[in-house]
Amino acid sequence: MKLSKSLPLAAALLALPSLGLAQEGPVAGVNASTDTVFIFNSLLFLIGGFLVFWMAAGFAMLEAGLVRSKNVTMQLTKNVVLFSMAAIFYYLIGYNLMYPLGDWAVEGLLSGNWSPAVLEAVGVTADAADDYSYASTGSDFFFQLMFCATTASIVSGTLAERIKLWPFLVFTLILTAFIYPLQASWKWGGGFLDEAGFLDFAGSTVVHSVGGWAALTGCLILGPRIGKYTKDGRVVPMPGSNLTLATLGTFILWLGWFGFNGASQLAMGTVGDVADVSRIFVNTNAAAAGGSVVAMILTQALYKKPDLTMILNGALAGLVSITAEPLTPTIGAATLIGAVGGALVVFVVPLLDKLKFDDVVGAIPVHLVCGIWGTIAVVFTNPDASIATQLYGILVVGVFTVVVSGIVWFILNLVMGLRVSEEDEINGLDKAELGMEAYPEFSKL
Amino acid sequence: MKLSKSLPLAAALLALPSLGLAQEGPVAGVNASTDTVFIFNSLLFLIGGFLVFWMAAGFAMLEAGLVRSKNVTMQLTKNVVLFSMAAIFYYLIGYNLMYPLGDWAVEGLLSGNWSPAVLEAVGVTADAADDYSYASTGSDFFFQLMFCATTASIVSGTLAERIKLWPFLVFTLILTAFIYPLQASWKWGGGFLDEAGFLDFAGSTVVHSVGGWAALTGCLILGPRIGKYTKDGRVVPMPGSNLTLATLGTFILWLGWFGFNGASQLAMGTVGDVADVSRIFVNTNAAAAGGSVVAMILTQALYKKPDLTMILNGALAGLVSITAEPLTPTIGAATLIGAVGGALVVFVVPLLDKLKFDDVVGAIPVHLVCGIWGTIAVVFTNPDASIATQLYGILVVGVFTVVVSGIVWFILNLVMGLRVSEEDEINGLDKAELGMEAYPEFSKL
Amino acid sequence: MKLSKSLPLAAALLALPSLGLAQEGPVAGVNASTDTVFIFNSLLFLIGGFLVFWMAAGFAMLEAGLVRSKNVTMQLTKNVVLFSMAAIFYYLIGYNLMYPLGDWAVEGLLSGNWSPAVLEAVGVTADAADDYSYASTGSDFFFQLMFCATTASIVSGTLAERIKLWPFLVFTLILTAFIYPLQASWKWGGGFLDEAGFLDFAGSTVVHSVGGWAALTGCLILGPRIGKYTKDGRVVPMPGSNLTLATLGTFILWLGWFGFNGASQLAMGTVGDVADVSRIFVNTNAAAAGGSVVAMILTQALYKKPDLTMILNGALAGLVSITAEPLTPTIGAATLIGAVGGALVVFVVPLLDKLKFDDVVGAIPVHLVCGIWGTIAVVFTNPDASIATQLYGILVVGVFTVVVSGIVWFILNLVMGLRVSEEDEINGLDKAELGMEAYPEFSKL
Repeated sequence: MKLSKSLPLAAALLALPSLGLAQEGPVAGVNASTDTVFIFNSLLFLIGGFLVFWMAAGFAMLEAGLVRSKNVTMQLTKNVVLFSMAAIFYYLIGYNLMYPLGDWAVEGLLSGNWSPAVLEAVGVTADAADDYSYASTGSDFFFQLMFCATTASIVSGTLAERIKLWPFLVFTLILTAFIYPLQASWKWGGGFLDEAGFLDFAGSTVVHSVGGWAALTGCLILGPRIGKYTKDGRVVPMPGSNLTLATLGTFILWLGWFGFNGASQLAMGTVGDVADVSRIFVNTNAAAAGGSVVAMILTQALYKKPDLTMILNGALAGLVSITAEPLTPTIGAATLIGAVGGALVVFVVPLLDKLKFDDVVGAIPVHLVCGIWGTIAVVFTNPDASIATQLYGILVVGVFTVVVSGIVWFILNLVMGLRVSEEDEINGLDKAELGMEAYPEFSKL
Repeated sequence: MKLSKSLPLAAALLALPSLGLAQEGPVAGVNASTDTVFIFNSLLFLIGGFLVFWMAAGFAMLEAGLVRSKNVTMQLTKNVVLFSMAAIFYYLIGYNLMYPLGDWAVEGLLSGNWSPAVLEAVGVTADAADDYSYASTGSDFFFQLMFCATTASIVSGTLAERIKLWPFLVFTLILTAFIYPLQASWKWGGGFLDEAGFLDFAGSTVVHSVGGWAALTGCLILGPRIGKYTKDGRVVPMPGSNLTLATLGTFILWLGWFGFNGASQLAMGTVGDVADVSRIFVNTNAAAAGGSVVAMILTQALYKKPDLTMILNGALAGLVSITAEPLTPTIGAATLIGAVGGALVVFVVPLLDKLKFDDVVGAIPVHLVCGIWGTIAVVFTNPDASIATQLYGILVVGVFTVVVSGIVWFILNLVMGLRVSEEDEINGLDKAELGMEAYPEFSKL
Repeated sequence: MKLSKSLPLAAALLALPSLGLAQEGPVAGVNASTDTVFIFNSLLFLIGGFLVFWMAAGFAMLEAGLVRSKNVTMQLTKNVVLFSMAAIFYYLIGYNLMYPLGDWAVEGLLSGNWSPAVLEAVGVTADAADDYSYASTGSDFFFQLMFCATTASIVSGTLAERIKLWPFLVFTLILTAFIYPLQASWKWGGGFLDEAGFLDFAGSTVVHSVGGWAALTGCLILGPRIGKYTKDGRVVPMPGSNLTLATLGTFILWLGWFGFNGASQLAMGTVGDVADVSRIFVNTNAAAAGGSVVAMILTQALYKKPDLTMILNGALAGLVSITAEPLTPTIGAATLIGAVGGALVVFVVPLLDKLKFDDVVGAIPVHLVCGIWGTIAVVFTNPDASIATQLYGILVVGVFTVVVSGIVWFILNLVMGLRVSEEDEINGLDKAELGMEAYPEFSKL
């Protein structure tokens, strides 16, 4: 296709001002105008934001495909409602907690001197824009909200098939209003982790490991599903009910990740920025490819048959692994970083089963383990990264999330009870908690 | 992420012109150039347009998930073909009827002095552009076409499981060629409703209520499905066959709505416009969140169990409700406007059943009732709106659509018969009308 | 919507420079600045690229829906892995083979003087950009990669339900690393077909016919599925297991095609280019509409019942048909070109069955036959096209692909064996080759 087009630049330079409305004058200069930069940056957030929104559908399909059919309606319900709750509580509390207006957000919150997120007025002018050198506040809010919702989405898969709806939703409220925004402020709100030089481009630690840690503590308190681990140490497979949905979900997440990582460049109004966004798209894709291919090869080697669920999780593992630094690697390095992620998943999934951590969809290997790996891997390609600082960041965020989410799960367990009754679990959460089957016309084996 | 980037504006201002090709000269000024505004606006329509196109898939999945499996192939067929027909007849007739070239489009149409839509020539220059201050005609046509197709999509769900294919398609032809464009011209073509000050930003009335009214009159003439209402007044539940599809469809619609409402700003080439588009994205999302959460809470309160299909319709209700004015509300107000929409759905669905309106997917509560609510709600946040004018617009469009679509359904019923035979309805439309099952390998209960 | 907005151009012209940061000076001129053109073009590739990426999900869903449930996991596995392999091997070999750095790429490859694709450095300046008059290399690579992957996706559907996984993957490697890039270089890399005046805007021949020819040769060597054709000459229908998935896949492909054709304009930084992209969006949509409606009408006329799978393939046929020239036709001409494509599918599908070519999903009629038709149809609307040159291009690419892919299939058959055992085919590839069912809880008939 390249050659069939004349050069647009030459055309642009040769074209004479030809419109009566415009004053005669110079051809526009080399750089984009200042308004244009603002528009490009805002547009990047809007496109990135709707792509990350789409990841909510990806999680819903992935999880609905990987649970048994008697729990599908519940998994769908959780995924729709957790997104909606994230939208509401990130607006009410999270956004201004993450990007503190004053010195320390929690102070403001505790003192009652608080406001939910406020956007620029309708038809705002450049003068009145909150940050004219950046982008519209609305576009920033829209994009940041989606990251908060993604964190909540990660938790629901691990705890599937046995957790009650309402305590899960209360946890989601606390996660999206407080836990996620507070720790995210340490890095992305310009807090102490950012000052310490901790690097996490699009959130291997800030988003994925946080979701993973919260899932891990919940999983620990909740315990495994009935029948998953036998007394004699066997692991009973409980295959997902619909692998086309799981595959669709993976493709959706893969697509959404271009927005997740690409728009985390936060700018595309200069040659350098748009070329960087392009690098990020390529590297994000390469990492997913590396992760899935390695998962296929390893499952063939280990189990004599490629395992589709591992291949899907391998792709996601690659995506999580590249998220802390999707810009600096070459395409080859990105593929390798993703490939290591894919291998980690293949080895960690059976390890978790040995430890009797019953993670229904593999969110802990994918989001937590590869979130850590990706954060460490920054040091291989970004000269500004220090391994000590990276480990420090991983540790700080990990300890905080484990302690706080652990306390919250513990209290919820005490007050509301986290787990459905044995009978309800065996009959399925759809009938017991929702009275509605996902596939009512199809007979089960 | 905010702090990890240097300011792109500062970089842009400091960068010296450094390219041999460009003449030395001033750094570009503050505003975007006039070409750039045209490009941004056209791009907004293209992005908005493909997002609204995607809603066609959303309706298809939502409806396929909410009908019984014996009618799924039919529902899919209708959704694909109605979109294709909209594309053809909006091109042939609708577009120029909606944006009249002369004084009154119908005159042109009747006099035979008529042309289908014509786009700008290949490689058009600024001078030759149809509207250089706006956007390319192709991008405008693409975007507007999707609204016409959306209107047709709304009708198919309500009438599912009993209407014949061909009369439905004839109705679709008339809807997309005449009914939708004609009434849309009254507002968006600069007609009398626009002159009267009627406000409907992205079509709560012009799109959603029109689809809803057409569905309502069809539903009235068609009657309920066999067995839906017993003689002793009970409503027999006929649960949808696939709730994952219904959820997927809802997420698709939600995603598409960012284009539906956001690109209805019609411009993003200035700071104010792109900030407005951003506000609209945020508010659209907030309304969907509000609608779904309220539907969950209300169904828990009323029926002791959250109802996923109500939660999904609650999200859609929120989206329809914010569509008449997604720009002026604060995020909080948008959430509330959507929440009221969600509540309306929960209360109107059983009400319709009492009236023996058998609306298979809930399109009337979602698109008609919330379309009206959203149009009224404009007065709460937009000081330019008058409640009298809003009611006038709702009424005019409603009466027109009910009368014309009623006549069309009536004639179609007389000439072709709208309804399949009792036997065909019981066996399912897939076997009877199409000879093809959607899930041929899976046994039905 | 049109009238509710003031003119953005007028606003832009009237606005005074009002920002302290910017120097006083001229309002930006008419044309977009040179940086802005680069940004717009790169953005076009990124958007187009993620839309074409999404087509990988479309092929996966379409094929999963059209095979029998016992082969669904295999079809999903192939579609995920083939995409990942395309990403890796197009990076390692394909990209630089397609856009040769020196005179003749194969020379470089054979001499060992070779490099995989290299992107511009992080934060590249205009001076250092690989092609400042075009777009960022990363965005170009991202977009071009997706075309290579699409070509591989086409092959998998035809050969479904009987080909082994591993030889298929080896073929994919050769296709994405060598076959596709080499022949693509003849046109899009500025090779001899381009010099001869062969026109193929977005790849009716370069992408679709190549995938189709490779599928055809594979199909010939592989033979039909067991039981598909009886000794007495009957064709046994083997209906797809899930028509909602097939429909979803079609909608995904339709959406992705806006990127496929639209971004093949390769530029949107001028009024003419963005208006052309808009034309392409409209025409692409029109052709799909034409194809699906004609398929519906013809199947009704021929078989007395509309056939959903034909309608879906009709839409895809329309899309392939318009791909060689989506820019120059009027909307009406585009609809007709697509309509002919839809008719071709309806007639060629039974013809292939007569010839005992067992094409499981209809990829040969859609991608090969309509790829040829679309390439010929260029002459009807583009005055630069010559029928002789078009046929010459079709022939050259066809002979090359048939010979090379034929040899590869032949060798793979000899060395690895292409086909699963009779027993495995009857039991389904999922159990035999993967040990994993797609729908394990649902009983089969």
